[in-house]
Amino acid sequence: MFNKETYIKRRNKLKEQVSSGVILLLGNDESSMNYADNTYHFRQDSSFLYFFGLDIPGLAAIIDIENDFEAIYGTELSIDDIVWMGPQDTLQQQALNYSGIKNFHTKAELNKYISTIKEKKRRVHFLPPYRPENKIKLVELLDVKLDEIKDIISVNLIKAIIEQREIKSEEEIIEIEKAVGITNQMHLTAMKMAKPGITEAEIAAAVHQIPLAADCNIAFPIIATIRGEVLHNHHHKNILKEGQLFLLDAGAESKMHYAGDMSRTTPVSGTFTAQQKIIYDICLTAHEAALQKCGPGVKFKDVHFTAATSIAEGLKQIGLMKGDIKAAVEAGAHALFFQCGTGHMMGLDTHDMEDLGEQFVGYTAEEPKELLLFGLKSLRLGKVLKPGMVVTIEPGIYFIPELIKMWKEEKRFIEFINYDKVEEYIGFGGLRNEDDVLITEDGYRVFGGFVPKTTEDIERYKAGESLDSILASKKILN
Amino acid sequence: MFNKETYIKRRNKLKEQVSSGVILLLGNDESSMNYADNTYHFRQDSSFLYFFGLDIPGLAAIIDIENDFEAIYGTELSIDDIVWMGPQDTLQQQALNYSGIKNFHTKAELNKYISTIKEKKRRVHFLPPYRPENKIKLVELLDVKLDEIKDIISVNLIKAIIEQREIKSEEEIIEIEKAVGITNQMHLTAMKMAKPGITEAEIAAAVHQIPLAADCNIAFPIIATIRGEVLHNHHHKNILKEGQLFLLDAGAESKMHYAGDMSRTTPVSGTFTAQQKIIYDICLTAHEAALQKCGPGVKFKDVHFTAATSIAEGLKQIGLMKGDIKAAVEAGAHALFFQCGTGHMMGLDTHDMEDLGEQFVGYTAEEPKELLLFGLKSLRLGKVLKPGMVVTIEPGIYFIPELIKMWKEEKRFIEFINYDKVEEYIGFGGLRNEDDVLITEDGYRVFGGFVPKTTEDIERYKAGESLDSILASKKILN
Repeated sequence: MFNKETYIKRRNKLKEQVSSGVILLLGNDESSMNYADNTYHFRQDSSFLYFFGLDIPGLAAIIDIENDFEAIYGTELSIDDIVWMGPQDTLQQQALNYSGIKNFHTKAELNKYISTIKEKKRRVHFLPPYRPENKIKLVELLDVKLDEIKDIISVNLIKAIIEQREIKSEEEIIEIEKAVGITNQMHLTAMKMAKPGITEAEIAAAVHQIPLAADCNIAFPIIATIRGEVLHNHHHKNILKEGQLFLLDAGAESKMHYAGDMSRTTPVSGTFTAQQKIIYDICLTAHEAALQKCGPGVKFKDVHFTAATSIAEGLKQIGLMKGDIKAAVEAGAHALFFQCGTGHMMGLDTHDMEDLGEQFVGYTAEEPKELLLFGLKSLRLGKVLKPGMVVTIEPGIYFIPELIKMWKEEKRFIEFINYDKVEEYIGFGGLRNEDDVLITEDGYRVFGGFVPKTTEDIERYKAGESLDSILASKKILN
Repeated sequence: MFNKETYIKRRNKLKEQVSSGVILLLGNDESSMNYADNTYHFRQDSSFLYFFGLDIPGLAAIIDIENDFEAIYGTELSIDDIVWMGPQDTLQQQALNYSGIKNFHTKAELNKYISTIKEKKRRVHFLPPYRPENKIKLVELLDVKLDEIKDIISVNLIKAIIEQREIKSEEEIIEIEKAVGITNQMHLTAMKMAKPGITEAEIAAAVHQIPLAADCNIAFPIIATIRGEVLHNHHHKNILKEGQLFLLDAGAESKMHYAGDMSRTTPVSGTFTAQQKIIYDICLTAHEAALQKCGPGVKFKDVHFTAATSIAEGLKQIGLMKGDIKAAVEAGAHALFFQCGTGHMMGLDTHDMEDLGEQFVGYTAEEPKELLLFGLKSLRLGKVLKPGMVVTIEPGIYFIPELIKMWKEEKRFIEFINYDKVEEYIGFGGLRNEDDVLITEDGYRVFGGFVPKTTEDIERYKAGESLDSILASKKILN
């Protein structure tokens, strides 16, 4: 937890931004698996963490701007809680010590407070709920119907929170560095383990163990797969075989719940085949081009355009694409191979603030997502980068048999795509690399330490060479 | 998944039991962590798994008894799903192939069906919802208020489901054996790792890795603690030190989601102190006495009474308790040391069917929980054991400073408890062992293989002796 002054400062800024009304922020509850008391690990809402720091289920908070009143609401601990969960400070003490909030009241008091606010026709600002328990709480607190909630969400509050959260402070950057440090270890472990005969599940389990052993957690479900072309593949049932590529997309969450999010693709056999090396290098060239493009004042949609154009040019060189590459990317023809965006914001969430809405997080009113070229429509982030923003860079190349078949049958983009040639790559799979990047005053900085990324470095690391030795020889070359 | 005939047979029996009306069973949805698409691992509802076998989020099912109509409702896969999640059978095919159900329809069709049923004033049977998303679905489907749901839950359906699920079939027993087999490995690993200098988190992570590596999961949050007296302790922040006891309560869930649930307590130093050995042996004697008591026709409350009496007698021998032990246990004086029940049912859930209500799962109308002696009030299960039931046996002894202080100040049970002597044990911590037990025609059988449980066996195993060697010398002795 940061110093309570941090949270007080953030809330004071929020009051200024929103300027009037009552801000209602709902914390998350425990989530049940198969019966009420059998719960998943608790994950607090990120905006609640950002403004209060309290990593405790079942809380809500009020910031009444005009009355300069702040309160946390919840159920105070009982002797039973202490018997079953061990001695701890009362919630009232924790609210005071960690959030700097003097008022701690029951949930019944929250109901009363909100009723009074509504009677006075004052505005209650709240965020879009993504958890069903918080939808229920809003229905009950605000006395509205479920399908009415979306119409009374506070866009002012959303914009104010994004304005604060999108620029990471120094203390937040240190937390992200910690998360990415653990994430590095997850990838180094997997890179070493990915050999013929091991299962995806065994690697995923070893990767999962690393943040847990540090008393942290995973930031998102682990993708550990020999089917890299299946973009959201959370099954781990395959056995790794010679000649395959193994893709890991995994990240740790620091103790304070900041995310790391990296991907690496490594050859199961220890060395890449000639064909794998060609596709890998096209992807890595795009990855490096996108990184180089990052900096303050640059629109992220141009970073994406850079990556997409680089991939399309590479694929043209080996005959999979053809024609005017700029026109091909504008039309979206590259999306046969590169279906997703080049990256997203990262912070307290892996896809930072995704619950607040893509339009607000990734775009601006002047340049909304709808105005994007067709070829950029899968992009989560388009707006201008500023110092303190943290983004991922993760272009990929994927050969998805069902998609190739569908597009070919539809004769989609036949002016840009050589389908006969593309079909030779069915079964290739898919690959990507992903790094986490801080936008600085004069450019960018990649978080974390050295995790092999070139085909040569990966092969050397898998052959048993140490990171120090690989790094030393790279320095001599430079 | 079992053969589809298994599910058809179970549903046919359910129809007979409930005899009229429409049974509505809701599957679980994905649960979000910090934004909608960032989800915990999916856990299907256990009753839905039991009757349909479909391990897929977002489904609901109808069994219309009089019309002999069955249907699954959900959103059929799209080309996007295949692009993002890989090729798979349609949900319609899966419902047919795995559940033996021909009808697969959209959720809008479910709404229509339920509306028709309600117009005809026919009964809709449903279970108590434990997940907020299913509370919302019931509110919308049945057009009732949230707080009205509890009044229209179908006790008939609850009782019918418990009647089936509480007796495990041979194929279910094989699944539980698999889960307990993995659970055994979790405990053996922790027993070896628990040494001075390691953290609880490092052990918990290694324990968690084991089911994940087998492409399974944990059945419940891992308790891995040097503070065994904190009964529901899911923090793993301590470093193990010489002289401490380390308690692991952990279990795997098989691929078909059957649970294992074991506990072991081991000395961090490798050997127990004289004081630890005394308390440990009192607990183990109670554990063995409870096991021996298990069998068909025996009430589980008598198994619990056996364990509680054994602990109280042991504590009397060393001067912590005094007076008439039978009277002490009936009054509940032992609950200063043994606060929870001796065990619970286990199956698709760790606490099997806990969502259906303790009164129905653990007790009978003739002998409801309210009739229990005060000293048994924390017991989840009281009723007569039958062949095919699976229960845990887990008496424990816990020295909880806050509870000792409170009881002493209240002068509670001063005729049975020597508080001055008890206070010497503050700081001792807490311990238990836990095994999973099948009730057979002629007694009981403990699931799984050999995991050291006597102080001698644990010390030998921690000293590096193999399980085979320890087992061999035990056989010579017997």
